Amino acid sequence: MRKRIYQILSISQKPGDLSWWVDMFLIVLISLNVAAIVMESVEPIRLKYSAGFKAFETFSVILFTIEYVLRLWAANEDARYSKPILGNLRFALTPLAIIDLLAILPFYLPMIGIDLMFLRIMRLFRLFRLFKIARYIKALNIMNQVVKEKRAELLVAIILTFFMLLLTSTLMYYVEHEAQPDRFSSIPETMWWGIATLTTVGYGDIYPITALGKLLGGAIAILGIGLFALPTGILASGFSEHLGSDKASPTTCPHCGKAFVEK
Amino acid sequence: MRKRIYQILSISQKPGDLSWWVDMFLIVLISLNVAAIVMESVEPIRLKYSAGFKAFETFSVILFTIEYVLRLWAANEDARYSKPILGNLRFALTPLAIIDLLAILPFYLPMIGIDLMFLRIMRLFRLFRLFKIARYIKALNIMNQVVKEKRAELLVAIILTFFMLLLTSTLMYYVEHEAQPDRFSSIPETMWWGIATLTTVGYGDIYPITALGKLLGGAIAILGIGLFALPTGILASGFSEHLGSDKASPTTCPHCGKAFVEK
Amino acid sequence: MRKRIYQILSISQKPGDLSWWVDMFLIVLISLNVAAIVMESVEPIRLKYSAGFKAFETFSVILFTIEYVLRLWAANEDARYSKPILGNLRFALTPLAIIDLLAILPFYLPMIGIDLMFLRIMRLFRLFRLFKIARYIKALNIMNQVVKEKRAELLVAIILTFFMLLLTSTLMYYVEHEAQPDRFSSIPETMWWGIATLTTVGYGDIYPITALGKLLGGAIAILGIGLFALPTGILASGFSEHLGSDKASPTTCPHCGKAFVEK
Amino acid sequence: MRKRIYQILSISQKPGDLSWWVDMFLIVLISLNVAAIVMESVEPIRLKYSAGFKAFETFSVILFTIEYVLRLWAANEDARYSKPILGNLRFALTPLAIIDLLAILPFYLPMIGIDLMFLRIMRLFRLFRLFKIARYIKALNIMNQVVKEKRAELLVAIILTFFMLLLTSTLMYYVEHEAQPDRFSSIPETMWWGIATLTTVGYGDIYPITALGKLLGGAIAILGIGLFALPTGILASGFSEHLGSDKASPTTCPHCGKAFVEK
Repeated sequence: MRKRIYQILSISQKPGDLSWWVDMFLIVLISLNVAAIVMESVEPIRLKYSAGFKAFETFSVILFTIEYVLRLWAANEDARYSKPILGNLRFALTPLAIIDLLAILPFYLPMIGIDLMFLRIMRLFRLFRLFKIARYIKALNIMNQVVKEKRAELLVAIILTFFMLLLTSTLMYYVEHEAQPDRFSSIPETMWWGIATLTTVGYGDIYPITALGKLLGGAIAILGIGLFALPTGILASGFSEHLGSDKASPTTCPHCGKAFVEK
Repeated sequence: MRKRIYQILSISQKPGDLSWWVDMFLIVLISLNVAAIVMESVEPIRLKYSAGFKAFETFSVILFTIEYVLRLWAANEDARYSKPILGNLRFALTPLAIIDLLAILPFYLPMIGIDLMFLRIMRLFRLFRLFKIARYIKALNIMNQVVKEKRAELLVAIILTFFMLLLTSTLMYYVEHEAQPDRFSSIPETMWWGIATLTTVGYGDIYPITALGKLLGGAIAILGIGLFALPTGILASGFSEHLGSDKASPTTCPHCGKAFVEK
Repeated sequence: MRKRIYQILSISQKPGDLSWWVDMFLIVLISLNVAAIVMESVEPIRLKYSAGFKAFETFSVILFTIEYVLRLWAANEDARYSKPILGNLRFALTPLAIIDLLAILPFYLPMIGIDLMFLRIMRLFRLFRLFKIARYIKALNIMNQVVKEKRAELLVAIILTFFMLLLTSTLMYYVEHEAQPDRFSSIPETMWWGIATLTTVGYGDIYPITALGKLLGGAIAILGIGLFALPTGILASGFSEHLGSDKASPTTCPHCGKAFVEK
Repeated sequence: MRKRIYQILSISQKPGDLSWWVDMFLIVLISLNVAAIVMESVEPIRLKYSAGFKAFETFSVILFTIEYVLRLWAANEDARYSKPILGNLRFALTPLAIIDLLAILPFYLPMIGIDLMFLRIMRLFRLFRLFKIARYIKALNIMNQVVKEKRAELLVAIILTFFMLLLTSTLMYYVEHEAQPDRFSSIPETMWWGIATLTTVGYGDIYPITALGKLLGGAIAILGIGLFALPTGILASGFSEHLGSDKASPTTCPHCGKAFVEK
């Protein structure tokens, strides 16, 4: 019985069977929840269909709760969490399980009495429903792997990026502060300019106006952008290594001449 | 007779013959039509030469109609559409044939009586004349192939892009909504900010002003841009694989003279 | 005698000899001329040192004229332009020679009486002094070669870019024109938006405000940027192929096992 | 004794020993100093904790001074600086030593009497404390190496970039100056537009408004961005060559088991 539940809840391999339909149903339900969060943010829609949103919210949370409880209960079927109580607890601490819990928590907190201010923040937790989909999207696993593999490179790139940002922003602050005390009011404030510039977003809400500031800003832009493009480049190459499977064409060994496929 | 028409209308291999001249004529006519659409959008020009535009419009549509009818009729010469009636219908449903039809349709609709509101939209269909040129531009076929080949990669990248956009916009909405209820008025509205930021376009019509918003926005910009650059990278590599054909060409070893392909 | 002049004017291989000093002198003179053009554009400086600028202008033009005449006269020494008169004419039509001429022309035109309006434009020709330096900068030759090699790729990329720009701008015009008749006043005007968006420059002087316009604009930004990044990518790869000389590491042939350097 | 000091100050290999703890302490102290510089720039914080900042400043400078003196004194232990006095002087002229000195100098200058105006600038020297960290961050060494290796490429790219910037800005100045004499007031001023455009930052504080200016600006944007992306590309490829070390690692053939390096 529990084994059956476990199989049904785990991602199905062959389309058409019950487990597959359950997956589909959950994917649709999660998507609808995300859509609801987005739609609800549009005032006219929220006001008009508030009842509908509330009903759908209750409906989804109940189903998600059942899903969560079943997953928790059936976890013992998994070799890693086979121990009766300890296993379930260990499963409850896995990222996906925590996401499932956080996705429903905001609904139950009011009952156990929480002040409203805190609740407003808790509503953000409904966003975790977006992450529930992660279990089903392969693309996210790929990204996950890429980040893992490129950990070292990304760390170096981010350190350099931050170092560059700190240095340029501090310099710019000293150069522009007097001319624009309201915009370049402090180094953290100037960092906002630094990010907007080095990422080439350039909103235009803040930019140097003094000759020296423009000279420095120009130099920073030309030299610094290369640094900020590093994480992008690293990610991109990581993905292409994963996705560009055609790259795995057979290589022939110069020693024995036999062909084999690069991993 | 029909065979002759078919040959003339199909793209000519050797320059100078009748078929080649027909191609040239059609390319020029299509280009002039596109130029007309562009020019007509400039008010002073439209007002001054309205008669000329109307005349040229009628002239082109007649020729395009003849072209369309002939192509339809001669389609049977093509092995794929050889069946008398069925073949012509099957040909009429090919993308290029549909484009040819849509390019002339807006001209005939008023005759069979269509309300004006709908017509205004129909005028957009004249844009399909731009696509008529596709039959002759090799570059577009290349792009077509690249997109086909990289389908899988592009899909993953687009899913991630959309996921990222949805997540960041929702977060930003909750952070910035209270400070700027008019700009960050809803999640869909915030997505406009998200796209402008993650693509680094940064028009500057909407940006965070709160400290938390700027912190979040900065982090999103630094981390998210890498993701949005993926489709670009995938397309670029796809093109370079197609265009940099010399890379795939076999190298011959100067010592043994034998050819082998670099992997 | 003429041979000596030719040798002196042609780029010197061994530093320190007369020819080398002449090169150095010309490089410095050209740089000073460019600096003068830039400085002269700053009003206070122009007003204060107008006499100096005029003097330096005359001085440089005289030297550049002598240089030009000598190059023209000594051209016969070059095997390609050995024929007495015809050779000198053929040399005078080489890009570098034309640049040399255009760089000094604006100075002499007033003498042969040209109306001022035309002269104002002619002053732009002084910019060709910037190109005179091309003879000495290796980097520009490299760029020249890269563009030559990647001609085909760049052409395809530019066609696609222009096609994309035309299509998106026309669509956007039909969508936004009514909401912002002053900004999206015509398709050519909308192209300015298209370029600012697809290159991700995003000045923020023009952007869609309607929901449909933002939706379309967002989609265009996400999909189109990849296309506009193509020329960049092609150029970049072209340069890296030229500059990344380390790539020319010995390859070993799988057939004979002998090592040789890729061209 | 001096040997011991030298070992303690030099970067420790095995975590946990005294030298390692000294490194950690210095890293923390430097980071706190940087944090202090950043925090102090926020007016409310500066006013509230001015005493604390002053105290911490004095405390750090004393420690940094001790560190500097000890490093200078212990330098003789290093084979390169073994000569008694000459060695210490030679060490004092190494970049890292100069940084250490400049980082503490601003504190002592007032004592030997320096006018305040000059001092304000000297305060910038406290930034060198940020560079003190360089001794400990491997990422910066990597960047250092990359820039060294790619020196030639970067030089070419920067020459081209500057050439492009100079040319486009001069052209744009002549085109746009009359329409916007205040914004495109001079060529140097126009270069600010050039940088903002060619780096795609596009603050939106300055952009062409004339038809010709927009045409030129658009062409510059499409063609020039590729050039400005070169340094970025060079840096990125340099880093990936350094970081993607697994690429250079020998592959072992599964058939013959022999190792060989992929080219």
